[in-house]
Amino acid sequence: MESTALFTANNVWMMICTALVFFMHLGFSFLEIGLTRQKNTINILFKNFFVITVGLLLYAIGGFNLMYPGFEEGAAGFFKFAGWGIASPENGMTAAYADGGYTWWTDFLFQGMFAATAATIVSGAVAERIKLSSFMLFAILYVGLVYPIVGSWKWGGGFLDGMGFYDFAGSTLVHSVGGWAALVAIYLLGARIGRFDKDGKPLAIPGHNLPLAAAGVLILWLGWFGFNGGSVLSADPELTSLTLVTTCLAAAAGGVSSAIFSNILYKNYDLTMFMNGVLGGLVGITAGADQMSPGDAILIGIIAGVIIVLGVALIDKLRLDDPVGAVAVHLICGIWGTLAVGIFGELASLDQFLIQLAGVGIVGVFSVVCSFILLLPIKATIGLRVDKEEELKGLDLAEHGMDAYADFRMNQH
Amino acid sequence: MESTALFTANNVWMMICTALVFFMHLGFSFLEIGLTRQKNTINILFKNFFVITVGLLLYAIGGFNLMYPGFEEGAAGFFKFAGWGIASPENGMTAAYADGGYTWWTDFLFQGMFAATAATIVSGAVAERIKLSSFMLFAILYVGLVYPIVGSWKWGGGFLDGMGFYDFAGSTLVHSVGGWAALVAIYLLGARIGRFDKDGKPLAIPGHNLPLAAAGVLILWLGWFGFNGGSVLSADPELTSLTLVTTCLAAAAGGVSSAIFSNILYKNYDLTMFMNGVLGGLVGITAGADQMSPGDAILIGIIAGVIIVLGVALIDKLRLDDPVGAVAVHLICGIWGTLAVGIFGELASLDQFLIQLAGVGIVGVFSVVCSFILLLPIKATIGLRVDKEEELKGLDLAEHGMDAYADFRMNQH
Amino acid sequence: MESTALFTANNVWMMICTALVFFMHLGFSFLEIGLTRQKNTINILFKNFFVITVGLLLYAIGGFNLMYPGFEEGAAGFFKFAGWGIASPENGMTAAYADGGYTWWTDFLFQGMFAATAATIVSGAVAERIKLSSFMLFAILYVGLVYPIVGSWKWGGGFLDGMGFYDFAGSTLVHSVGGWAALVAIYLLGARIGRFDKDGKPLAIPGHNLPLAAAGVLILWLGWFGFNGGSVLSADPELTSLTLVTTCLAAAAGGVSSAIFSNILYKNYDLTMFMNGVLGGLVGITAGADQMSPGDAILIGIIAGVIIVLGVALIDKLRLDDPVGAVAVHLICGIWGTLAVGIFGELASLDQFLIQLAGVGIVGVFSVVCSFILLLPIKATIGLRVDKEEELKGLDLAEHGMDAYADFRMNQH
Repeated sequence: MESTALFTANNVWMMICTALVFFMHLGFSFLEIGLTRQKNTINILFKNFFVITVGLLLYAIGGFNLMYPGFEEGAAGFFKFAGWGIASPENGMTAAYADGGYTWWTDFLFQGMFAATAATIVSGAVAERIKLSSFMLFAILYVGLVYPIVGSWKWGGGFLDGMGFYDFAGSTLVHSVGGWAALVAIYLLGARIGRFDKDGKPLAIPGHNLPLAAAGVLILWLGWFGFNGGSVLSADPELTSLTLVTTCLAAAAGGVSSAIFSNILYKNYDLTMFMNGVLGGLVGITAGADQMSPGDAILIGIIAGVIIVLGVALIDKLRLDDPVGAVAVHLICGIWGTLAVGIFGELASLDQFLIQLAGVGIVGVFSVVCSFILLLPIKATIGLRVDKEEELKGLDLAEHGMDAYADFRMNQH
Repeated sequence: MESTALFTANNVWMMICTALVFFMHLGFSFLEIGLTRQKNTINILFKNFFVITVGLLLYAIGGFNLMYPGFEEGAAGFFKFAGWGIASPENGMTAAYADGGYTWWTDFLFQGMFAATAATIVSGAVAERIKLSSFMLFAILYVGLVYPIVGSWKWGGGFLDGMGFYDFAGSTLVHSVGGWAALVAIYLLGARIGRFDKDGKPLAIPGHNLPLAAAGVLILWLGWFGFNGGSVLSADPELTSLTLVTTCLAAAAGGVSSAIFSNILYKNYDLTMFMNGVLGGLVGITAGADQMSPGDAILIGIIAGVIIVLGVALIDKLRLDDPVGAVAVHLICGIWGTLAVGIFGELASLDQFLIQLAGVGIVGVFSVVCSFILLLPIKATIGLRVDKEEELKGLDLAEHGMDAYADFRMNQH
Repeated sequence: MESTALFTANNVWMMICTALVFFMHLGFSFLEIGLTRQKNTINILFKNFFVITVGLLLYAIGGFNLMYPGFEEGAAGFFKFAGWGIASPENGMTAAYADGGYTWWTDFLFQGMFAATAATIVSGAVAERIKLSSFMLFAILYVGLVYPIVGSWKWGGGFLDGMGFYDFAGSTLVHSVGGWAALVAIYLLGARIGRFDKDGKPLAIPGHNLPLAAAGVLILWLGWFGFNGGSVLSADPELTSLTLVTTCLAAAAGGVSSAIFSNILYKNYDLTMFMNGVLGGLVGITAGADQMSPGDAILIGIIAGVIIVLGVALIDKLRLDDPVGAVAVHLICGIWGTLAVGIFGELASLDQFLIQLAGVGIVGVFSVVCSFILLLPIKATIGLRVDKEEELKGLDLAEHGMDAYADFRMNQH
């Protein structure tokens, strides 16, 4: 009987974490529309609604069974599919599921909320110029196939798990899987009109609604309570609360570090760098949030904050155009966080570092290859990018025939 | 002693659900102001603040005792009132309340958060033209009397409960009770100036802040975790988590179905249809969220999404003006969800369907009659609608002497 | 074993409350930017990000150990410091911490989220004219030293606790500590240009985004579920749920009372008074939320609502400029709430009232003295206020070189 109460408490925690991860989609939406131009707002929101709804349905139809196929323990599983459809859990399974951690239903929904995240990361990077239909097609395939296959390698008991790779809540399995696709997509898409001058010098295209962007970051931080806290997969008091402490301290340290470092470099109190530093700290702690001391977490955050500033500059240097900084935040800090598990915390060792490095590399190659395989045919057929005219006019009018702020006068830029 | 831990876990879940249902009021606010014009923003916010604050106080003073009067089991109770005031719970009652599901206080607050919802549904439909004082008067009477009386018939153990009517979380008792009043109110009020041309052809009046409207939908979806999840009235792991799964899948299916169906009809990627489809799916699953399989939930959502598109067109056809689509979402999908309990899921049978149909009809007749009884005298005395001049100028300046966006230049429309 | 399940449920509740208190920072941000002008938006957001991130880090480095130094029981402790750094909790401490209420980590994070609040209260009052660097310096010292020292007197087991002073969740220890600093700061800063005419008559400077301000209030209300609900320091079903009921009823009563009273005085449906009334009710109930009956809570809220209206008028009369009403809400209602513990509820007695009065006075003197000690040297050296030119231009361009709403045309005022 004891188990009933503990099971109930565990399941309550996991349901709350599920709700918080769901709420991250509002954070992503606000961040993306805030950092882009008013004329593409509806388009971004449409993509976000598409990703969360279709992502959940795809995960129900096949993704869950693809990601958790029941590899034999330690098996070097590379691809396995447990079948279509979310079968109702077997009789009696609910109470016993995951050692009393939560019910089968909770597991499905928690994992389903994660699935859509990878595509949302891409959505921000390709904003303001991708063709809606092309994005939707890509998102379906990436969320429905690539994300669950990679996830199965570690969380489904596949070969990455077998070789000792550690990724607590997904610095690699979620953030860099999304980040690699974002990188490939912005490479294939090219920069927005006006983003670089004739000599390739970057010109800032300021976001149109910084309050919403800042709100997005705070909502994402809140959501990370669930993203990391729920990845404990029970309400274990010590582990969940340690995880929340490391998560919050890394976020705080990342923000402060980014703000200070960018102030030193550019003599400016840059709010967007502060915001991206917070996100970088969050992504950076995600792989090892349950393994770190508070001091480790602060160090990981500080380094993530510096990485963000350099990463954004690097992307610019490469003449890539990433309106929301998704590659610096999710890919580069995702890699950093994964490697940090081998440097800081309870698992730190050279061996672990090399395993982490291998995991980063394997997932990177697979994600990049898949992204090309999916995006190149789309580019060759229906095309990736909207017409020049549509881009200038804005996707809201061009693709949706609507204006996001009908009553307000706008500046042109 | 076991019961203490389980009771505590149950109560924690119910308190969280209460907080989430409270938060839905931000969702409603954002949705309503986002889909209407900038010049009526303060007025809408004032109404929302009024509804949540006065609604809670009314529920404390009398509504709770009206809704849960303690009918004898199975009795054909039609009207009973347990007295004024929220008496402190009897000694020892807290721990034992609702079979250890939660405390008496939690019960009061959870139910109180529901009560205000019905009036909020009306608020959106009558936006941009109703007189503030008339709305406030109507809301007081509807939330204070009509909602709890109808609620008592089922959730208070009255005659609808006795005849086997099933409404898990309120497709009928909350959403269609609000929706019927919205329908009567917009019929009596008439359309906003400029909403239909001389020949009765509908002209779109675009909302002024789509990011907030979209945020409203996502916040409402989040709130539904509590609205449906809390309606289990305990943290029972299997039932709560199944309920969250069916709720989220219906929402996702509703959105996708609405987006696809409206795209087929109107050749347009319509964000507001996508949003309303999500809401329609949520309302549709609400009556039977604990009775459905995931597949049932997806079907209910798909049908709700189609219904939303047709419903919005029907309201237009009838030359009714519902700025936020409240009638299509809350009334029509509320009816659909209630009937769906007789078609899908564990209770499905012809008998159940007929009982559901009877419940829908009885509640509908009562709600419509009450709405006329309350609104006609208001119309005849202080009037329902603001002057033409005030409507053109906007209610913010006319009724509140304030401007919601003081620093921004506006377009006229 | 029983204890494991109960401990887990308690800890889950406390983690959720921590998340909700964190989320209040979005509420404060929205409230502050909504009630000020568009040209200072980025500056306000930057301050908010600064306060939450640096506040958490300072609390980790020293604040927590300063606030909870382990005074001997009942000792008249006035200053004690447990040392630098958040030491990992001693072995076995987690499970036993706070009588199984929650883990040491949860405690740290919950208290850390509170710490930043005091500085955030100041941030709103000094908005639109304070120099960023001066604010940051002040915030570091006030959050890092003054707040934890005052907190230790009661919550750390110091002399205020020894003398029987009661402050459940911080009407005094959080809200008036912040409010006193806000009062001193706006006195030293002076009013914004254009806020009073040559004869000292107040001129309204309307906020630029009322939807965000209103959202801020609703988010703060939501956050108060955690602020007060978590201050029970366990998930005790009766106490937590009673606390939520009194909190919500006081908020509702405060809002309604403020709306009615301001309508009587000024013949206007004033949304910002409604909003501030809600906040005043929340601050007012905070000191005794676990001691009051629902009826007491409503009375405390009603009085808070009246106080808000009078308080805002008083601040104006004194020619002080508080753009968001922080002094009326946090200081005056904080005092009211603290005194109310001696008037209403289970502790009401003349003795208790006098103890409460003494506590208010002691904390007030200390906070005011500290504020002067910190602010006067800053004023004398780097200066508190931006140049006139920068103020007119707006701090966003002057201090950050950015525009919060790049695409929108603005009115000048």
